[in-house]
Amino acid sequence: MNSLQTVELVPPGIADIESAAERIAGHAVRTPLIESPALNRLVGGRVLVKPEMLQVTGSFKFRGAYNCISRIAPERLKAGVVAFSSGNHAQGVAAAAGMLGAPATIVMPSDAPAIKVESTRAWGAEIVPYDRLREDREAVARAIAQKKGASLVPPFDHPHVIAGQGTIGLEIAADVEALGLRPDAVVVPCGGGGLIAGASLALKHALPGVPVHAAEPAGFDDTTRSLKAGHREQSVPGAKSFCDALLAPMPGELTFSINRRTLAGGHVVTDHEVARAMAAAFAHLKVVVEPGGAVALAAVLAGKLDARGRSVVVVCSGGNVDPGVYCRALQGG
Amino acid sequence: MNSLQTVELVPPGIADIESAAERIAGHAVRTPLIESPALNRLVGGRVLVKPEMLQVTGSFKFRGAYNCISRIAPERLKAGVVAFSSGNHAQGVAAAAGMLGAPATIVMPSDAPAIKVESTRAWGAEIVPYDRLREDREAVARAIAQKKGASLVPPFDHPHVIAGQGTIGLEIAADVEALGLRPDAVVVPCGGGGLIAGASLALKHALPGVPVHAAEPAGFDDTTRSLKAGHREQSVPGAKSFCDALLAPMPGELTFSINRRTLAGGHVVTDHEVARAMAAAFAHLKVVVEPGGAVALAAVLAGKLDARGRSVVVVCSGGNVDPGVYCRALQGG
Repeated sequence: MNSLQTVELVPPGIADIESAAERIAGHAVRTPLIESPALNRLVGGRVLVKPEMLQVTGSFKFRGAYNCISRIAPERLKAGVVAFSSGNHAQGVAAAAGMLGAPATIVMPSDAPAIKVESTRAWGAEIVPYDRLREDREAVARAIAQKKGASLVPPFDHPHVIAGQGTIGLEIAADVEALGLRPDAVVVPCGGGGLIAGASLALKHALPGVPVHAAEPAGFDDTTRSLKAGHREQSVPGAKSFCDALLAPMPGELTFSINRRTLAGGHVVTDHEVARAMAAAFAHLKVVVEPGGAVALAAVLAGKLDARGRSVVVVCSGGNVDPGVYCRALQGG
Repeated sequence: MNSLQTVELVPPGIADIESAAERIAGHAVRTPLIESPALNRLVGGRVLVKPEMLQVTGSFKFRGAYNCISRIAPERLKAGVVAFSSGNHAQGVAAAAGMLGAPATIVMPSDAPAIKVESTRAWGAEIVPYDRLREDREAVARAIAQKKGASLVPPFDHPHVIAGQGTIGLEIAADVEALGLRPDAVVVPCGGGGLIAGASLALKHALPGVPVHAAEPAGFDDTTRSLKAGHREQSVPGAKSFCDALLAPMPGELTFSINRRTLAGGHVVTDHEVARAMAAAFAHLKVVVEPGGAVALAAVLAGKLDARGRSVVVVCSGGNVDPGVYCRALQGG
């Protein structure tokens, strides 16, 4: 294993995020801000959506993965990278590694949906299955990394990953400036907290004073409760949600050390509210949002964050969802 | 009625399209080109998609409507605009009129889907229903225009409309140039032919020598057959397709006078091929494409236009589709 594991857990600064923006330029999609007058009317305010489902691999995860992997020394890079994930991080790492010429090994549960295994393999990654009930995926990944001399790419709790995701904050700031607009709030989906940690750091610098809020699914509101408590709290034991991208058991150590300083608070939404937000994005924005990607939009549409007469930027963080799940959301939402 | 009806049917030139681009700037969405490595692998080439479902009102129609209405003299504009359409043109005209401060009257069949009536009314337009079986919608619209002194905005066969749609061609040319790419072909959905007439005029100027192809649904391949015949031919009588945006009975007079000069040919796709293209856009591009908007992508995915080892730009022209129709396409496509 290399410095990716042993680096000190120091929060990135604005220079690190700006440097990440240079790294990913030309490789990541520079997503715009989109809006819909019909959606604006629905909330009685202005909702500007950052559509990260249009990102390479269909989610923001590519940004952090690319920034991280691009900083591995060339001789190390040859030994490859390893990640454990059954979802968006797996695809982000596989794609970034492929572009940077590094072999990627992704540790995935042996019962992961075939479609996710296939789309990760399609990026050229080797898939190593593990038994979700008997094995510790992190231990499996670490053993592979050690054996191969490969670098483990953590899903969120790493400065390079956080800096990569933070590029979203810089892009939001540039785009609202181009619109001549100062938003009243920014709302961002929150799982382990890497995306919102990076974005809020960037926004604190680029749009000082604009509050940044986390959005989380009910039962997985660990960051919302941790912010209130002032220390890291766990998700509700046994909680269930179809927001599969946001089921982290507790905030990251590094991400929470940032988020406790940068965030204005959190909003919690139900699966039903999330389904309604997915349907609204279909009807008004014409983009595919996965459940976990829709929690921030859900918070606004459900009135948890009051957008009436205000301008709110909402990050929709991904669009990797099975047709069956998607259509149930559209038709029952 | 005003000059919109009585103007001579002269094809727009590149200066008209450039002027339209200035008119719509800041009002229309400057849509990007998006692509997916997975989709590229699927076709064995490079597919760059122009996602017009992200346009204001969810389709390209806003471009032509805005350009057209913005050229009506102020005193005329007060009397308002009229259009007949149950679909994307209705919403485009309603939105553009709303932004330009003109009252809009839209003549729609009394049995039009409630969702389309509602979304048109939501833009502030007055809806006038007519009996599809007993009345001629064009005559109804003309009578209203005459009575009010209002301007009729034609769906495709008008120089200002064609010039507005042509802005898509300028944007494609600018974006492929930024990528350092010269595409091998451009494929565009074709109903009445306004979009492809404008786009092909712009591309002939900005990317001379790059062939532009029409894509049409089976049975509504009037432009494909007209191009072969050298004169305007009708759609197949009694033909059916779920591509509701592309059911024009024959090419427009003005649009065909352009398209016969500018197009390399046409490709015809089945509803099943269209459904598969909608599903591919969902899976790989994360955007919602309506049936008529997906015919060009379908032509490439079905191999009607060979993209192997080539770079092809595909216009996806709209995303206004009911959830039920969409989900049937995703699940059966």
